[in-house]
Amino acid sequence: MSDAEIRVAVLGARGRMGAEAVQAVTDAEDMQLVAELGRGDARETIVEAGATHIVDLSVPDATEDNVRFAVEHGIHAVVGATGWDDEKLSRLQDLLSEHPDVGVLIAPNFALGSVLATAFAAKAAQYFESAEVVELHHPNKVDAPSGTAARTAQLMGRARRDAGVAPSPDATQKDPDGARGAVVEDIHVHAVRLRGLVAHQEVLLGSPGEQLTIRHDSFDRASFMPGVLLGLRTAASRPGLTHGLDGYLDLGL
Amino acid sequence: MSDAEIRVAVLGARGRMGAEAVQAVTDAEDMQLVAELGRGDARETIVEAGATHIVDLSVPDATEDNVRFAVEHGIHAVVGATGWDDEKLSRLQDLLSEHPDVGVLIAPNFALGSVLATAFAAKAAQYFESAEVVELHHPNKVDAPSGTAARTAQLMGRARRDAGVAPSPDATQKDPDGARGAVVEDIHVHAVRLRGLVAHQEVLLGSPGEQLTIRHDSFDRASFMPGVLLGLRTAASRPGLTHGLDGYLDLGL
Amino acid sequence: MSDAEIRVAVLGARGRMGAEAVQAVTDAEDMQLVAELGRGDARETIVEAGATHIVDLSVPDATEDNVRFAVEHGIHAVVGATGWDDEKLSRLQDLLSEHPDVGVLIAPNFALGSVLATAFAAKAAQYFESAEVVELHHPNKVDAPSGTAARTAQLMGRARRDAGVAPSPDATQKDPDGARGAVVEDIHVHAVRLRGLVAHQEVLLGSPGEQLTIRHDSFDRASFMPGVLLGLRTAASRPGLTHGLDGYLDLGL
Amino acid sequence: MSDAEIRVAVLGARGRMGAEAVQAVTDAEDMQLVAELGRGDARETIVEAGATHIVDLSVPDATEDNVRFAVEHGIHAVVGATGWDDEKLSRLQDLLSEHPDVGVLIAPNFALGSVLATAFAAKAAQYFESAEVVELHHPNKVDAPSGTAARTAQLMGRARRDAGVAPSPDATQKDPDGARGAVVEDIHVHAVRLRGLVAHQEVLLGSPGEQLTIRHDSFDRASFMPGVLLGLRTAASRPGLTHGLDGYLDLGL
Repeated sequence: MSDAEIRVAVLGARGRMGAEAVQAVTDAEDMQLVAELGRGDARETIVEAGATHIVDLSVPDATEDNVRFAVEHGIHAVVGATGWDDEKLSRLQDLLSEHPDVGVLIAPNFALGSVLATAFAAKAAQYFESAEVVELHHPNKVDAPSGTAARTAQLMGRARRDAGVAPSPDATQKDPDGARGAVVEDIHVHAVRLRGLVAHQEVLLGSPGEQLTIRHDSFDRASFMPGVLLGLRTAASRPGLTHGLDGYLDLGL
Repeated sequence: MSDAEIRVAVLGARGRMGAEAVQAVTDAEDMQLVAELGRGDARETIVEAGATHIVDLSVPDATEDNVRFAVEHGIHAVVGATGWDDEKLSRLQDLLSEHPDVGVLIAPNFALGSVLATAFAAKAAQYFESAEVVELHHPNKVDAPSGTAARTAQLMGRARRDAGVAPSPDATQKDPDGARGAVVEDIHVHAVRLRGLVAHQEVLLGSPGEQLTIRHDSFDRASFMPGVLLGLRTAASRPGLTHGLDGYLDLGL
Repeated sequence: MSDAEIRVAVLGARGRMGAEAVQAVTDAEDMQLVAELGRGDARETIVEAGATHIVDLSVPDATEDNVRFAVEHGIHAVVGATGWDDEKLSRLQDLLSEHPDVGVLIAPNFALGSVLATAFAAKAAQYFESAEVVELHHPNKVDAPSGTAARTAQLMGRARRDAGVAPSPDATQKDPDGARGAVVEDIHVHAVRLRGLVAHQEVLLGSPGEQLTIRHDSFDRASFMPGVLLGLRTAASRPGLTHGLDGYLDLGL
Repeated sequence: MSDAEIRVAVLGARGRMGAEAVQAVTDAEDMQLVAELGRGDARETIVEAGATHIVDLSVPDATEDNVRFAVEHGIHAVVGATGWDDEKLSRLQDLLSEHPDVGVLIAPNFALGSVLATAFAAKAAQYFESAEVVELHHPNKVDAPSGTAARTAQLMGRARRDAGVAPSPDATQKDPDGARGAVVEDIHVHAVRLRGLVAHQEVLLGSPGEQLTIRHDSFDRASFMPGVLLGLRTAASRPGLTHGLDGYLDLGL
């Protein structure tokens, strides 16, 4: 075992994302998979296995304890589990201040393309007169619009407001059935549901004579793994809490 | 002057569409422009000029008299003017039964691409599990969804019902702001408004493992002229009333 | 067992397409799976099981014998196997003339969306000044352009020539590296290879002021099964040989 | 006249871009148009009119003298004229070192959307396994691929090489007619020519399970004016030479 090696314990290893992560870490030449934990397994295994990093893909009621355990043992953490509200984040930040060498990444989305698309959309939104979002998903999805689309629209709307951009022009007077969709932070958001699709998003920006379109297609949860590996490779060099994978990308946005 | 020649009088020649039509007829090698009429000009000019066809791009309160005048004089008519309700159409059909050699085309849309897109969408809709429509227009448009999108959705919805296809699956339970858009004949229709755009429509059809997309972009009213010329070239060989340019296309749909 | 039932034997049942077909037939309420044959299994099983139809997804050197066996026993056939050259097709047609009640469908492509996209493209091509094809596939594909794109371009090119349409305008004088792509029947064809994709095709048609785009996305071989089932439901009512699934669609194109 | 005002002389004012610039400056509330110069007009007019900025949209053999004249008189310059080779740029930089308060922007492209699309593409290219470019233009264009597409591919290719990314995977063995297009810095570039289009570009990035698409559509040269105005508003605060409008955008890329 070399000191430089990234020794990874996967938590939530029996879920679908967990199984993908186990495979991805196993396939990565610069990493070693040292433990796989599921619900009920003892956290001590992480330490006994000599893990330098955890990937936490467990459930909302377990993730806080998992991450705190890692931090207390000087182990870096890449976290895809949900349920991190402001209170939990604040408690984690307090703990991290006592362990200044440990890096934790909490990322609601590990798809690099999606993270880039959102960052680009937020950046570009201030330079165009009009901005809208269309998200397209499989028809089994229960909420509309998607969380990613709502967050993208929020970031775009805020960037436009900060730059003093007026709301997108819209002369609509008659729309009895709601064809213009939802409005999030002054940005219209449309949700399409179509059999055959997985998760897709299109940001449309328009000015006189030109249009910029930023589209992300997610076909498979395999798309999350490059982001997870990037997280693992970067966490040790970014002590403290990073929220969102974009914090690890060299975007300068 | 050859007998075979298409000799065209343009009515409503001083409007924007009329001016385009005057230009298009002038440029067509197999046609001759013989008269340009605006509001207040005497209809007799059409006959005196020896017109074999009229293009009527006048206003709703003039078009019926214009077309009846043409039919009574054995002149074929290609009509883009609006305002043809069922009553006027019925009266016209009665008149045409007395002039069995005359052909009249009344077309709400002369853009070949748009007419084809709608026909293909209506045809394909029955073969897919899911179907939605997204229309995109300039932000000065006052109504949503567009008339073309509503008509496309109607035709798609009816074709699906006639073929016994179930409504598109949709598990949405939470959509507080209406992101799912309008519903026309069981088809969800979304309206985007964006500076820089003109008139665009995308029909999305999905089944397990595949998607079919039929998109039409209208950048300029120049796009109507090939349809007007096709109408003029075809009217004499299609006696009676034809409603919609698709009736002149060899679609068999 | 009811006489009306479609009783299906799947040949080539152990391949990937075959396994999908076995599942699809099993799931179809109006069908019964009566036999699954792989390489080396005796064809007599088909008759003994009382099959009314076969789905042949076997290999090029077996498919002709399989289909002839079926026809000789009055069994309808839906064939996805490749290797049917003109000579084999001609021999099959001779055999079918002796069995006038039997229907055989040989289809190089069972994806309904792809078949519709090709038919629409061939139909629309004659109405536009410009026409090109872009196909996009996974990077493991060894040939470019794809067979489907080449066939689509051929059909489009022939339809344009039959209608007297001039080749697409192109003022290109300088293209040292071949960015304009391949030319098939006067239609430019471009091939993109991208990790993450499966099989996609975009037909682009342009005239002054407008564009028509027909795009098909194939994400998964599940997309072939609705076409296979449609073939099984239709074969008995279409005696003789039908080449291409479009022959079973009510396209009138 | 207020000191803060941007007082603009437009050079090359009788060309099509020049006429657009005259209009745009006239319409801008924070600017005053003080002179319009065409071929043969005396440069002294610029100084006599009290210009603080020039917009130079003249021709390759005049632009260097125009810009040097402006710099020598302490006037900022926004330059869209072409013909700036390394030698001219080097001479200009020498001159600017003697006038440290003057700002000059030389921009091959003033469309904000296009500049953003290129910057985003160059940034994102390093995070994906595959990368290609498709550009689409009107059929009167004489060169393929477009200069913008070639430059985008160059920037993407260099960014990938700098980040140690392998060339895009490609198993193509058989491509007799060149469907795979041109290759620029290991990036495949495809050129479509279609009546009805103006200038469009699509950057396609793919990894396992996901795709990122960045598309820019230029419908009209009106799209250049927001970039010209942004240049005029920014030049005074960016002394020295800036090459490319992206240098004035807060991209941090």
